Amino acid sequence: MRIAVDVMGGDYAPRKIIDGAKLAYEELEGLVEIQLVGNKEIIKKFNIPDGFSIVDTSQVINAGEPPLEAYRKKKDSSLAKAVELQKSSEVDVTISAGNTGAAVAFSILTLGRLEGVDRPALATFFPTRKGKVLVLDVGANSGVKPLNLRDFGVMGSLYLKKVFSLNNPSVGLLSMGKEDTKGGKSVQEAHNMLSEANINFIGNIEGYDILNGNADVVVCDGFAGNAVLKFGESLVDFILSEIKEGTSKNLIAALGGLLIRPVFKDLMKKVNYEEYGGAVLLGVNGITVICHGKSNEKAIKSAILKGYKFYDLKVNSLIQESLVK
Amino acid sequence: MRIAVDVMGGDYAPRKIIDGAKLAYEELEGLVEIQLVGNKEIIKKFNIPDGFSIVDTSQVINAGEPPLEAYRKKKDSSLAKAVELQKSSEVDVTISAGNTGAAVAFSILTLGRLEGVDRPALATFFPTRKGKVLVLDVGANSGVKPLNLRDFGVMGSLYLKKVFSLNNPSVGLLSMGKEDTKGGKSVQEAHNMLSEANINFIGNIEGYDILNGNADVVVCDGFAGNAVLKFGESLVDFILSEIKEGTSKNLIAALGGLLIRPVFKDLMKKVNYEEYGGAVLLGVNGITVICHGKSNEKAIKSAILKGYKFYDLKVNSLIQESLVK
Repeated sequence: MRIAVDVMGGDYAPRKIIDGAKLAYEELEGLVEIQLVGNKEIIKKFNIPDGFSIVDTSQVINAGEPPLEAYRKKKDSSLAKAVELQKSSEVDVTISAGNTGAAVAFSILTLGRLEGVDRPALATFFPTRKGKVLVLDVGANSGVKPLNLRDFGVMGSLYLKKVFSLNNPSVGLLSMGKEDTKGGKSVQEAHNMLSEANINFIGNIEGYDILNGNADVVVCDGFAGNAVLKFGESLVDFILSEIKEGTSKNLIAALGGLLIRPVFKDLMKKVNYEEYGGAVLLGVNGITVICHGKSNEKAIKSAILKGYKFYDLKVNSLIQESLVK
Repeated sequence: MRIAVDVMGGDYAPRKIIDGAKLAYEELEGLVEIQLVGNKEIIKKFNIPDGFSIVDTSQVINAGEPPLEAYRKKKDSSLAKAVELQKSSEVDVTISAGNTGAAVAFSILTLGRLEGVDRPALATFFPTRKGKVLVLDVGANSGVKPLNLRDFGVMGSLYLKKVFSLNNPSVGLLSMGKEDTKGGKSVQEAHNMLSEANINFIGNIEGYDILNGNADVVVCDGFAGNAVLKFGESLVDFILSEIKEGTSKNLIAALGGLLIRPVFKDLMKKVNYEEYGGAVLLGVNGITVICHGKSNEKAIKSAILKGYKFYDLKVNSLIQESLVK
C-alpha cells in the first residue's frame, strides 16, 4: 500500500508527523510505501529513511483558514497534493493532521463520493465508560436527510466490523427525548430506515447516553455531532485547567495534585482524543484519515495503521456493495 | 406575585422542593404567595408555614415519561395543575423540577405563545471560564427556521438585560466552522437576521467557543443545544467519577484526593448546573421556570427568585414589544 502523509498540518508538524510516519513504517515494513508531502527543504532537515519519498509543495493551509477558500487558492498546498496523489492513483491513502474542514472539503471535492453514497460523513471516536464509541457525522454535513443518517449507520457499522473486528456493532440514533416524535420528522424517518437496514440498530439515544457505551456507533447530523465534539473537547480542557489552577493555589492542594497525578494520567489517556488515531471520512471515493491537530507521533502512527487496515480490508468496496441498490 | 410550585417533580421531591419554597418565601416575604401543588396527604406531613396554600392533585409524571403521552393522560398531575393555575390567572409563575420535556410541552400547549413569537425556546445557563452563558434553545424545538433563531437572540438578550441586569449582552450563533456557509443555509440566513436585529450580535461561534465566555448568549437549534447540554452533563459526571474511582485505588491516591477536595468543591460549584436555578421557557405566554431534576432547596429558591424577577420586570411584555412587527 502507498500512503501520502501531509507533513505540514498539525500543531506539532512537521517533526511529530514525520516521527509518526517512521513508527508506522517500522511496524508495517514491507507492506507500505510512504510519501511525505510538504516543503522539501524543511523535510530534508529531518533524518528521513531510505524507503520514504518526498513530494515537494510550496503552500501550507493554516488551522483557522476557511476550507473552501483554501480549496480555491491553495492548489500547491501539502494537503491538496496529498489528496491529489490519491486521485491520480499514485497513493492509496492520505493522512493529514491539518485543518479538518479543509481535509474534508479537499477529499470530497477531489475524490468524489462512493457509488451509492449521497453524503460522506466524518467519523470519530469518543471515549466512553466501556471503551469507545464511533460518532458520525461530526462535521462533514449539516441538514442531512433521513436516508443519509441511514447510510451513516451502515457505513459506521461496516467500519467497526472490519477495521476493529467488532462483531455486530450496535447503532444508536441521536435524538432529543424519549419519544420518537421528539427529534423532528427527519429523525423519525431515519429511525424507521435504520430499523429496516441490515445492522444492529438499538433505537434512539440522547446526548447523555453517548458516554454510557451502550451504542458502538452513534449516528447524527454533522451540525449536532460537531457541536458535541467541540464542546466536549473544550469541557475536558476547562475541567482539567480548573483543577490545575486549583492545585497551584496552596501547598496542600499542590501536594494533593502530586499524589493523584497517576489518576490524572489514566484519565487523560481515556479522554484524550489523540489516542484514537484520527477520524475517517466514510463514503468518499478514497481513504482519508484526518488526525487531531494536537496529534503526536503515536497518534499519527495509529492513523496510518488504521488507513492501512481500511485499505487492506477493502472497506470501501463493502460500503459500496451495501449501499448501491 | 403568586407562584405555583410543583412539589412532586424532581429527584429530591417533595422535601427539597418544599424547603426551597420556604427559603424563597422568607427572602421574598410580603411579595409572594406560594401554592404547593401535589398530593395533599404527603405535603401535610411537612411543616408548612401559614402563608402557603396547598393544591391537591392525584397524579405524578415520572422522569422518563414521554411528554405528549403525559399531557394526554395526566390531567390531574401536579405539573398539569401548576401550569393550569397560570392559565386560569390564579398564579403568575410556575416552577417545576420534574420531567423537563413534559414541563415544556404542558407550558406551550396550555399557555400558548406570546404574540410575535413563533417558537418558544428553553434557555439555560452553562458555566464558562468567565462566568456563565445563556444557551437557547436546549430542547423545546428541533428544525427551527432562521427567524426563530433571530427571535431566540432577541429573547435571550432581553432576559439577561432585565433579570440579570447585564448591559448590552453579546449574542453568538452556534455554527459548524469558520465559514458562514458551513452551518447550512438556515444558519447563514439566521446570521443575517441576527446582524440586523437590535442586539449586540457578535457572529458565529463554534462548539468549543461556548465555554470561553465571549458570548453572553448562544443561539442554536434545540436539537444541537439539547445534545450539547446532555452530553456536557454526562461528561462532567464521567470525569468526576473516573477521578473518584482513581483516588480509591490506593492509599496515596486517596490521600491526594483528600488534599485536593477543596479544589473539587470549587470546581463542582462552577460546573454544577443546579447552582444556576433552572431554565426558563422564553416566548411562552406565561412564566415557567424548569429546574434540573437534581435540584436541591438552594436551586429551587434561586428558581423562584428568578421567576419573581421575570414577572416583576415584565420581561414578557418587553419580548412581545420587540417581536411584534
